[in-house]
Amino acid sequence: MGRVVVEVMPKPEILDPQGKAVVGALPRLGFTQFSGVRQGKRFELEVDGEVTPEILAAAREAAATLLSNPVIEDVVSVVDAAAVPGEATGTPVSA
Amino acid sequence: MGRVVVEVMPKPEILDPQGKAVVGALPRLGFTQFSGVRQGKRFELEVDGEVTPEILAAAREAAATLLSNPVIEDVVSVVDAAAVPGEATGTPVSA
Repeated sequence: MGRVVVEVMPKPEILDPQGKAVVGALPRLGFTQFSGVRQGKRFELEVDGEVTPEILAAAREAAATLLSNPVIEDVVSVVDAAAVPGEATGTPVSA
Repeated sequence: MGRVVVEVMPKPEILDPQGKAVVGALPRLGFTQFSGVRQGKRFELEVDGEVTPEILAAAREAAATLLSNPVIEDVVSVVDAAAVPGEATGTPVSA
């Protein structure tokens, strides 16, 4: 079973209230290393067979039309999960 | 200026209503290739200097404590954006 990962972020010129909330909370928890935070979305689209170039093209179209709002968001990546090291298994990162 | 990308997804056993909404909408728009969708979050944490191993460790801790809810979510990746091809510039993918 294949998986396509789509990543969407708010455009740089768009205010990102969720990111602002996170950047305000970080120093209160002792994380003073970070000067800015943007929060976007990550989708995993599952397909029954292999991720073919046609599937990737459909995912790119879906990303541009349904998964993102092109007025306020950019699609930053549409990739076959199997092509990204560490993404294939979806193994959680331990803290 | 460095950037750390943190990706968080709902745990597989947790119901994901946003993903369910997307998977229901896809066939209505003509995308019949996809059998399942999960929706998670993607954060970009900006740092003023380089992304050092210490910064990455802090980002991992922030990911586990502030950016995700460990009861219902997994942190799937915490990486230096410069180490991921195509992530460094944040160039939008054209549809």
